[in-house]
Amino acid sequence: MARAWHLMSRPDGLPTEANFALKELDQPALGEGMVRVANRFLSVDPYMRGRMNDVKSYVPPFALDAPMDGGAIGEVIESRDPGFAPGDMVLHMAGWRDEAVVPGSALNKLPQLGVAPEAFLGNLGLTGGTAYFGLLEAASAREGDIVFVSAAAGAVGSAVVQIAKAKGMTVIGSAGGAEKCDFVRSLGADAVIDYKAGPIVRGLGEAAPKGIDVYFDNVGGDHLDAAFAHARKDARFAICGMIDSYNGGEPASFRYIMRVIAMRIRVQGFIYTDYMARMGDFYRDMGGWIASGQVKSRDTVMEGLERMPEAFLGLFKGANTGKMLVKV
Amino acid sequence: MARAWHLMSRPDGLPTEANFALKELDQPALGEGMVRVANRFLSVDPYMRGRMNDVKSYVPPFALDAPMDGGAIGEVIESRDPGFAPGDMVLHMAGWRDEAVVPGSALNKLPQLGVAPEAFLGNLGLTGGTAYFGLLEAASAREGDIVFVSAAAGAVGSAVVQIAKAKGMTVIGSAGGAEKCDFVRSLGADAVIDYKAGPIVRGLGEAAPKGIDVYFDNVGGDHLDAAFAHARKDARFAICGMIDSYNGGEPASFRYIMRVIAMRIRVQGFIYTDYMARMGDFYRDMGGWIASGQVKSRDTVMEGLERMPEAFLGLFKGANTGKMLVKV
Repeated sequence: MARAWHLMSRPDGLPTEANFALKELDQPALGEGMVRVANRFLSVDPYMRGRMNDVKSYVPPFALDAPMDGGAIGEVIESRDPGFAPGDMVLHMAGWRDEAVVPGSALNKLPQLGVAPEAFLGNLGLTGGTAYFGLLEAASAREGDIVFVSAAAGAVGSAVVQIAKAKGMTVIGSAGGAEKCDFVRSLGADAVIDYKAGPIVRGLGEAAPKGIDVYFDNVGGDHLDAAFAHARKDARFAICGMIDSYNGGEPASFRYIMRVIAMRIRVQGFIYTDYMARMGDFYRDMGGWIASGQVKSRDTVMEGLERMPEAFLGLFKGANTGKMLVKV
Repeated sequence: MARAWHLMSRPDGLPTEANFALKELDQPALGEGMVRVANRFLSVDPYMRGRMNDVKSYVPPFALDAPMDGGAIGEVIESRDPGFAPGDMVLHMAGWRDEAVVPGSALNKLPQLGVAPEAFLGNLGLTGGTAYFGLLEAASAREGDIVFVSAAAGAVGSAVVQIAKAKGMTVIGSAGGAEKCDFVRSLGADAVIDYKAGPIVRGLGEAAPKGIDVYFDNVGGDHLDAAFAHARKDARFAICGMIDSYNGGEPASFRYIMRVIAMRIRVQGFIYTDYMARMGDFYRDMGGWIASGQVKSRDTVMEGLERMPEAFLGLFKGANTGKMLVKV
């Protein structure tokens, strides 16, 4: 019997395992045009926290006590769509479950790029695309820029570090703890700041004595304030995430936001899907960098559908280096 | 004997009269290329508060116990520059004094646009240009946009309201108190919020039930947070000033800044002088609107050089409707 995770109650602040329940999934018989997929890898992503609130945003909120969804890679095991045959590996959005029955129109067959299938949840998927379009489009980062990226050991951040190096930029990354900082350094970052070792505003000042041209924000809060403090003239910030604020609590407070004026800072919020028309560029560039070894991935993989909430909650505790995945 | 105001000490927080002293100005004999100007109108502007701190910014800090400077309109009374003759009306930066001796190269003869000379410190000067370039360039405001402007009864804000109406936008202005709100309504604003009557985030929600496309920020703080709360997709914010923060104190805190991501908000800091290359457009458009009556000015004029600090401090107490000037 297939199973799926349900959101049973809307979390107030940081979610806990008690907000979730794993329930049997009553799969219908396979109708015309439908495909049955055995999921192999499930994605957990920080944006899912927003979907747990009952608030209209760029993706609809999760319904209560209904199967949750999210990015997934699976193998077709039965098909009534002529475009798919058993054995095909597909990317789709019916995650948080071990088996999915979805219309063929909602499946993307993985292109043959000679990479592991789970890369399409990582550097060739949402996280890599978010890094690529955020850095190069939202922040208009160019060769020679000094780039600061927060959560640089995370899924998106580690891709930003490597894309920026591939494009000839100077990169400063922040991460929490010596092990993650070593990982960021191993990705080619020119300087790494351990934000747990002292105030980030001081760390960034030491790591970027000339200031920064670009900030790729995954964190918000004090990291964003530090970027305001050290921005050079005409700096550009791409705001990708504010993991510090996803679970509510105190409003973020900014001591240096007034520098937006003097430094003519541009702050741009963005979502990966804004750039779907340019996916061809992304696959070409990112596929090439992965093939050449300029962009590597390190995933944090938890085994078993049962561990989905644990994997998801781990995102807010810094439990992952690189992309967090669950192997079904 | 000419006199000039000196900054005697750097204010900590809100300045007081004790930070300033009016001193005799020992004017040199008029050297070759120099011009003596009797100042008629002196400008006080919020940006001058930043110059009172010993911090590198886009204009250098005021030196201690030396004549201060700032925008001024005056009449040439003696000239050793062949480009200027007694009786010429000129715009220059040797303000905060009753008489200035400056090189001819630092003077701009007022163009003959049939307007009062002091307009070149207002709608045809720094304030009008700041409104024009901030709204149309930094915020890329277009016909049909819903525009929110804070401090809408102030010098820059009142110009923003009128330019936006001249360009076919819907305009919501905020101001403090019934009298100022009436003034903003008289400028053509479609809705006016008295920020002293309740939380601005609620007032803006009522005044802009469909949300806003553009925010012209003169204030920062709660006004900026309210704009985050009510921004529509692809909203653009021009950050002109943050008068709430100029005098230091608590860091600004934001409850709604995370909407930058979902709404893809663009926040752009700017300075008037960034757009000097386009002054021709500005004089053409603004000159036309003033001639047609689409842009009017109402100045708050204090009489006498002695009142310069009082006029300047009034900017932070909401003492001005429209542009604050001192008539010498």
